[in-house]
Amino acid sequence: MRFVSFEFQGQQAIGVREGAQIRVLGNESLESLLARGVDLAAYAAQAGGELLDERDVTLLPPLSRPPKIICVGLNYADHTKESPYDQPDYPTLFFRVHTSLVAHGQPLVRPAVDDCAGLDFEGEVAVVLGKGGRHIRKEDALSHVAGYSLFNDGSVREYQFKAPQWTVGKNFDGTGAFGPDLVTADELPPGARGLLLQTKLNGQVVQSASTDDMIFDVETLIAIISQAITLEAGDVIVSGTPAGIGWAREPKLLMKQGDVCEVIVEKIGTLSNPIVDEVK
Amino acid sequence: MRFVSFEFQGQQAIGVREGAQIRVLGNESLESLLARGVDLAAYAAQAGGELLDERDVTLLPPLSRPPKIICVGLNYADHTKESPYDQPDYPTLFFRVHTSLVAHGQPLVRPAVDDCAGLDFEGEVAVVLGKGGRHIRKEDALSHVAGYSLFNDGSVREYQFKAPQWTVGKNFDGTGAFGPDLVTADELPPGARGLLLQTKLNGQVVQSASTDDMIFDVETLIAIISQAITLEAGDVIVSGTPAGIGWAREPKLLMKQGDVCEVIVEKIGTLSNPIVDEVK
Repeated sequence: MRFVSFEFQGQQAIGVREGAQIRVLGNESLESLLARGVDLAAYAAQAGGELLDERDVTLLPPLSRPPKIICVGLNYADHTKESPYDQPDYPTLFFRVHTSLVAHGQPLVRPAVDDCAGLDFEGEVAVVLGKGGRHIRKEDALSHVAGYSLFNDGSVREYQFKAPQWTVGKNFDGTGAFGPDLVTADELPPGARGLLLQTKLNGQVVQSASTDDMIFDVETLIAIISQAITLEAGDVIVSGTPAGIGWAREPKLLMKQGDVCEVIVEKIGTLSNPIVDEVK
Repeated sequence: MRFVSFEFQGQQAIGVREGAQIRVLGNESLESLLARGVDLAAYAAQAGGELLDERDVTLLPPLSRPPKIICVGLNYADHTKESPYDQPDYPTLFFRVHTSLVAHGQPLVRPAVDDCAGLDFEGEVAVVLGKGGRHIRKEDALSHVAGYSLFNDGSVREYQFKAPQWTVGKNFDGTGAFGPDLVTADELPPGARGLLLQTKLNGQVVQSASTDDMIFDVETLIAIISQAITLEAGDVIVSGTPAGIGWAREPKLLMKQGDVCEVIVEKIGTLSNPIVDEVK
């Protein structure tokens, strides 16, 4: 099943895709349902709502306020090679905050700061947890996954490298695109393995890899993170980007007003966003 | 005024200190009141609740689920000198997540992982925002502060340096002590400036500095962070630690089961926590 969050006639709601339409399930958010331990498929089977046309709704990120958004850096070897870092043998984690999120179709924002030549793209698979825990064993980890979605981890490189932590360059408002659908885990290979991940900028392929190339796969990430941090239902793990980022190119290829960036992963879908300049 | 969050007879509540007692204000959390834009002093003046003895309640962090917990690294020059970093001319920010928080009096937890010689201490002033915003001007920044509290940014150094980002070493469950009181800004010098900050381990002073020594003061932090990130009422900025951390000593001085660590800042109070080893 493919769940979406959206706004319709001024109200936030969630729904499930049925062909080209969206069946409305109710006004409780996905993060709230997941926090209550509700099984999404059973919930969707019970509710029998109105059918809407996607064109009539404004999509929101599948979860607008996940308890945590845990991003993984340097998780594809060929991307680490184009970075200024050696490959660490432990996951490189950083957090995003909800204020940085935008939905499918909404603009990614290049901030109006002096030193931002452009926004960089990073196509990624997002993992949404349906069940939390601490000290989750790797062999149990995939049973904690509710589903998968897409992420464009828009990065302001100048700010990412102003200080030893990447935080600011990864958290400007309107730089993290998330969506469009939360695809339940049963629709995908275990751990979303073996899927072609591509990022296109204005139709041109700029990143292309298999999710098999992740250094720390989904179950390993869940196991390692939960050795330290209690994971919660609704937490999102953004699993890293492959090679091809714009900052590492000669000349640099950064996103600017008028561009369109798409993250496309087989069986999960397409996350598409126009780029705009911030107007202060 | 000094606000506290606590549990009493199985219910979460907030209150205000009156001498040695706590006057109960109600069951709505401080983060919820702040998010609704409620003026805390006016709220406290209206509510006329029961008086409790502090010994009869279990204190909680002033806010258990702040929208964001933004920590500042390398914000005292003498601490940067004892670190492996050069002093950056932009704030070094990282996030903590709520799952890492413990209250005054609760144990700080040294995790049961192979490579953790002990937990390191970092005494800090925490700034709680009463009003959010983006592009907040430095001259307006202090009007966004609801009050101040204390923080012990307990750090697992081995994990802080396993990868290029400090995230995991700063986010083990039970490593971030926060409290005891939220002291409203009117009770302190503007920006909590000029206050003696001390950390004591088993009664011995291990850190001692003036909050005047912050490289980026509170108003500068709010202005700079909000250039990138929308700040929200209830957000917490943990403003950095001075020199003296245990990891930089020869021999290292790390916290272990049975130790007691106190963070003491003039006019704000004392945050005291025993240390325990995690039992898996």
